[in-house]
Amino acid sequence: MFDAISLLGSTGSIGRQTLEVAELLKIQVCALGANRNIKLLEEQTRKFRPSVAAVYDDESARDFKARVRDLDVRVVAGMDGLIEAAAVDEAGVVVTAVVGTAGLLPTLAAIETGRRVALANKETLVCAGELVIKRARESGATIIPVDSEHSAIFQCLETQTRNRVNEHSCNAQARDDVKQLILTASGGPFRGKNRSMLQDVTPDMALQHPNWSMGKKVTIDSATMMNKGLEVIEAAHLFSIAPERIKVVVHPESIVHSMVEFIDNSVIAQLAVPDMRLPIQYALTYPRRKPSLAAELDVTQLSALTFEQPDTDAFPCLGLALETSRLRGTACAVMNAANEAAVELFLRGSISFYGIYETILAALDKIANIEDPSIEDIIAADEAAKRFVRGLVASG
Amino acid sequence: MFDAISLLGSTGSIGRQTLEVAELLKIQVCALGANRNIKLLEEQTRKFRPSVAAVYDDESARDFKARVRDLDVRVVAGMDGLIEAAAVDEAGVVVTAVVGTAGLLPTLAAIETGRRVALANKETLVCAGELVIKRARESGATIIPVDSEHSAIFQCLETQTRNRVNEHSCNAQARDDVKQLILTASGGPFRGKNRSMLQDVTPDMALQHPNWSMGKKVTIDSATMMNKGLEVIEAAHLFSIAPERIKVVVHPESIVHSMVEFIDNSVIAQLAVPDMRLPIQYALTYPRRKPSLAAELDVTQLSALTFEQPDTDAFPCLGLALETSRLRGTACAVMNAANEAAVELFLRGSISFYGIYETILAALDKIANIEDPSIEDIIAADEAAKRFVRGLVASG
Repeated sequence: MFDAISLLGSTGSIGRQTLEVAELLKIQVCALGANRNIKLLEEQTRKFRPSVAAVYDDESARDFKARVRDLDVRVVAGMDGLIEAAAVDEAGVVVTAVVGTAGLLPTLAAIETGRRVALANKETLVCAGELVIKRARESGATIIPVDSEHSAIFQCLETQTRNRVNEHSCNAQARDDVKQLILTASGGPFRGKNRSMLQDVTPDMALQHPNWSMGKKVTIDSATMMNKGLEVIEAAHLFSIAPERIKVVVHPESIVHSMVEFIDNSVIAQLAVPDMRLPIQYALTYPRRKPSLAAELDVTQLSALTFEQPDTDAFPCLGLALETSRLRGTACAVMNAANEAAVELFLRGSISFYGIYETILAALDKIANIEDPSIEDIIAADEAAKRFVRGLVASG
Repeated sequence: MFDAISLLGSTGSIGRQTLEVAELLKIQVCALGANRNIKLLEEQTRKFRPSVAAVYDDESARDFKARVRDLDVRVVAGMDGLIEAAAVDEAGVVVTAVVGTAGLLPTLAAIETGRRVALANKETLVCAGELVIKRARESGATIIPVDSEHSAIFQCLETQTRNRVNEHSCNAQARDDVKQLILTASGGPFRGKNRSMLQDVTPDMALQHPNWSMGKKVTIDSATMMNKGLEVIEAAHLFSIAPERIKVVVHPESIVHSMVEFIDNSVIAQLAVPDMRLPIQYALTYPRRKPSLAAELDVTQLSALTFEQPDTDAFPCLGLALETSRLRGTACAVMNAANEAAVELFLRGSISFYGIYETILAALDKIANIEDPSIEDIIAADEAAKRFVRGLVASG
């Protein structure tokens, strides 16, 4: 276990839970980073005493500096600030829990230092997966997923990565033994509903997630099932497996967090009560484990566990993401950015529930895919897609 | 993967399925061993051409020798014959699928050669667990369980046995991270029935297992749930864990074959269609996997998966076995032998369903526990218990 972390996105849902875990495990927090919730960031800074605190929003950074002038903390601002916080020397693990594309560069910076990255920022792998995995290989950084599904697969895959007979590791061999990954999805608040029932869904309805307490953006992504599409893309990069070999299965009880099917038809699954503090902690303690804040799972107290096929007619964003996952280049970045902007519009009441899907489709149609992109190409594609989506409503 | 095996108990259920797997994997069978089903053993010998064939029953051995005199096979007889077959030089893996205490000495012989033992004989660990594990440590033999539950736990525990950070193995550390093992039980044909409903159960009723096709002895053990008690004892030895840390959970669908709960409350489970050819194959191919004869598990086609507490009032053999599991010495051997003899009596109609439990209880009461027994003490305890049980009926 590492005894010091840098935490980017400390005021969001994952960030706050990471601090609960850090407190439990008595892990030092040497850097914090947030966007503009400086009130909470101040509380966190007073409690955890990081040496660096990064505030992405420049104006908030100035306010924050004034608030904590009595503390021995270096306040840094903007993207450069986040990158600096990500690369702080003392941190054994960098937890990147920034929501959105803003997480991309700081996560890359952490990866380039070669240390362990506990990855909770979806955009890093969705938008720049090939590039990020390549850089991690070069720097020797270990990327450990924080998402419950990817953590589950990571835990299940460990079943095949050690060879008692030959003590050398055999990751590549082990991957040959994997037939497919089975990503579970809760199905969100609208599971079982068909397209006509979902035409007039409001943001409030979409924000009622049955099992998980998460941020707004992720909760809407769960309602459209875009979330699961993005996770397929992430999993493909993280576990070096073709997206065609990743299957999505709806599991409304959210107890089985994902599974790995091997070529002999043996399936290894990870189960737990739905509590993000468990995968967060595992990313910090891996390969060991420690008692956690997650409640014990008593399988005899559960309702029956069920699994069903996802309905890509009612949830077209999932089908779209699965198709897009097969494209290389900037297509996934465009899809992700268009989704992010469209979800904002939906939350503001500017577009309908299915408007999210139509908007992403339009963006993918409009913005040309760039093969083998640089990080600048990816960021440009992201910005172009968001501009395009926002323009649709401004002009419409 | 090893390219040659020795198979003891080739004519039983596990033995026959092992030969199906050997055929699929193109593994050579260099020794076969059976008790008295020489008709089937002859077929197997003609097909697989072992260099040694052992027949436990002396008279059958003579008949068998005559039957295969046209073949280039050395026929050996009795316990010495089984032991010789177990230690055949060319075999990389010895599969010990003999039913009953007769499997003990040949399995020990295989372990003492230091090679891999695919263990399907329950008695080895139930009766002589401490001694067997000690000998395996000394000889360097790897014991890989064939039982579906133990194979499941073995597969799940692999999640914790490799350390990416430190490439050295960390089995002892990993064991510290285990909170408990969760052994699943189908509940057998009488699940949900209470004690008064089960008073007049006949052998035919008890032989109708809902999920697994197995030998008669094992099927009755499943109906009384003694099977699960024996498995707890085996698991405790195999995974060096106190029996108090092994929980039995009834899972009627027989899809989750067992689970491991870690100290962080993460649970790793192994799932598959119920097909013994899968764990048999894994014991041969471990740590790699190969396409198998087991059908693919489509979780979306399953009925709901459920888990419940076992009913130790209706199934007192389970409670008795759990209590006995905490005793060291010959107590488990006595319980196992009394059970084996009592099941024979039940199958012959000489005692009732609950007579099995009462008989075992009487044997445990009558036969003194010997602490720190030798293998001879264990075999003597086994014989004494069987004699005692058979005497109860002869005299009664």
